[in-house]
Amino acid sequence: MIIDCHGHYTTAPSELEAWRKRQIAALGDPSTSPKRSELTIRDDQIRASLENAQLKMQRERGTDLTIFSPRASFMAHHVGDESTSREWSMLCNDLVHRVCQLYPDNFVGVCQLPQSPGVRPGSCIPELERCVNELGFIGCNLNPDPSGGHWKEPPLTDRWWYPLYEKMVELDVPAMVHVSTSCNPCFHATGAHYINADTTAFMQFLTSDLFRDFPTLKFIIPHGGGAVPYHWGRYRGLAQDMKRPPLKELLLNNVFFDTCVYHYPGIELLAKVIPVDNILFASEMVGAVRGVDPDTGHHYDDTRRYVDQLAALSEEDRRKIFEGNARRVFPRLGAKSARAVNAAARRAA
Amino acid sequence: MIIDCHGHYTTAPSELEAWRKRQIAALGDPSTSPKRSELTIRDDQIRASLENAQLKMQRERGTDLTIFSPRASFMAHHVGDESTSREWSMLCNDLVHRVCQLYPDNFVGVCQLPQSPGVRPGSCIPELERCVNELGFIGCNLNPDPSGGHWKEPPLTDRWWYPLYEKMVELDVPAMVHVSTSCNPCFHATGAHYINADTTAFMQFLTSDLFRDFPTLKFIIPHGGGAVPYHWGRYRGLAQDMKRPPLKELLLNNVFFDTCVYHYPGIELLAKVIPVDNILFASEMVGAVRGVDPDTGHHYDDTRRYVDQLAALSEEDRRKIFEGNARRVFPRLGAKSARAVNAAARRAA
Repeated sequence: MIIDCHGHYTTAPSELEAWRKRQIAALGDPSTSPKRSELTIRDDQIRASLENAQLKMQRERGTDLTIFSPRASFMAHHVGDESTSREWSMLCNDLVHRVCQLYPDNFVGVCQLPQSPGVRPGSCIPELERCVNELGFIGCNLNPDPSGGHWKEPPLTDRWWYPLYEKMVELDVPAMVHVSTSCNPCFHATGAHYINADTTAFMQFLTSDLFRDFPTLKFIIPHGGGAVPYHWGRYRGLAQDMKRPPLKELLLNNVFFDTCVYHYPGIELLAKVIPVDNILFASEMVGAVRGVDPDTGHHYDDTRRYVDQLAALSEEDRRKIFEGNARRVFPRLGAKSARAVNAAARRAA
Repeated sequence: MIIDCHGHYTTAPSELEAWRKRQIAALGDPSTSPKRSELTIRDDQIRASLENAQLKMQRERGTDLTIFSPRASFMAHHVGDESTSREWSMLCNDLVHRVCQLYPDNFVGVCQLPQSPGVRPGSCIPELERCVNELGFIGCNLNPDPSGGHWKEPPLTDRWWYPLYEKMVELDVPAMVHVSTSCNPCFHATGAHYINADTTAFMQFLTSDLFRDFPTLKFIIPHGGGAVPYHWGRYRGLAQDMKRPPLKELLLNNVFFDTCVYHYPGIELLAKVIPVDNILFASEMVGAVRGVDPDTGHHYDDTRRYVDQLAALSEEDRRKIFEGNARRVFPRLGAKSARAVNAAARRAA
């Protein structure tokens, strides 16, 4: 079985974006803001949005289950205030929940958090609890920079974030560190801001004792860990110069990397330098890169092909990357089937 | 012959830092600011600062010539105003010039620019001209974020920067894209800000027509190009999705990567995905990572060892990485000896 730990609902029906535009247009006068109940999307629209996209690609590529969350670039936590973000997050999470109920074998949910610049992360706890306890979600996406490229929040290792971490630990859910769109013209969103955030978060973890305070807290750093595996020697050396413990001991019980690296040499490097227990299969399809690589004739983001090509990998290691590690890092999935996770949610809801 | 295209004077005598502290202390009252002439460093102090550091490592590692610039983390363009930055830059550049005059076979100079947040980059032209025309320098370091981690300047592809580029083209000098220290607590300087800036600059170039406007303008992206080679498939795919030309055509006549990647698998990936004509040998010693890798028994930043291990490289390709590309990207060095470049400077001065 192959679990893709990183997929966003990038193909949601256009009604979602239209609702969001109305919400943004009403920022000056919240009384005119659309209600969540005003979003009307039929089941057949949801099916159509997935059948020729994520589901088709699952079938074609031979992957089975996608850990699925709202579109990252649309989270846009910088828009409006805390209540703007809460309404939008609930709407997006509810839509992912419907996806999971319609295709309970193909998707399990991960939630967007209603973060807002300068607002204490504890404000996200009610929505995290709702998603986990009522919708059957198994993780969350945590934005280290809700300002969208201005980096005004404290580092992820600051006590600012601790109330949220306490809840994550209690609920036994990991977070994928994932920024949203960039409002800073210096940073292209998917080409710079995403990758920079991954690198930044790792270095924040490296310089802190966060995981001494939260030994079971788990983060996935997406996009192959940003620049980190390519510069693994640099990070080992920096940790050593700072008299930190070796990286393995310092953070590899808590920090994991996905395989969203869109060429074989990158995946090859990832598998060479990062312990196999810390690599989770992912493609981010349908995501940042949608084309076909003329050199291979396959989609750039068909990352299964790159992992399949790793001849040095034992079958046991391959199973870890494709399935076992995801089940370990997302304990609410654990040994269960996606269908069982989603069915339990429906009962609770 | 082996040319290291990326070395900073990180070991300058402590008098330099003491002068800088006085300058910073005087920011509130510029009349008390130290004069440049008040910095007194003897030749034997300069010799001592290099003999057991950069020169010793050149000898031990079998490299010959370092393209040498002031300490990057000390540029700190965010401090004070334009005149603060000009005085400090002149002082640092003059010191690098003395290094080159004392060891004309071992070092040629690259200058720090007197950038200041919000100040038009054309303000750097006089110092660039002085360094190139009078001190014999062959390039400059350009900081894409003089704010130090707040990224308030326009992207490097904005016309804001064009006057400086016109002068670089006229003088036939490349720039290394190199940020300085980070004032943003989110970004560790050498572990995140440096690498992020490299990635950011590349993506700015990718999305622009800068090199249509300046076909001979050249940039070196240090630290192995940040995250770029590791994500080469992503960048190829993003360019393709945006209907940009292939990367080779779009920017590989103008953008080069150094080899400051501190483990063999990283260098191996770099050499696999980036055309050999675009790779310049560098170590950044004595730089960000100073320790010995317990796995190899050698310094992390002894990058020559990694390049030497690249069995797939032809001898001609190896000569390009070690020497030929640097001579091509730095035309003021060209086929000349460092001694000849430095001797001409002395005559002009």
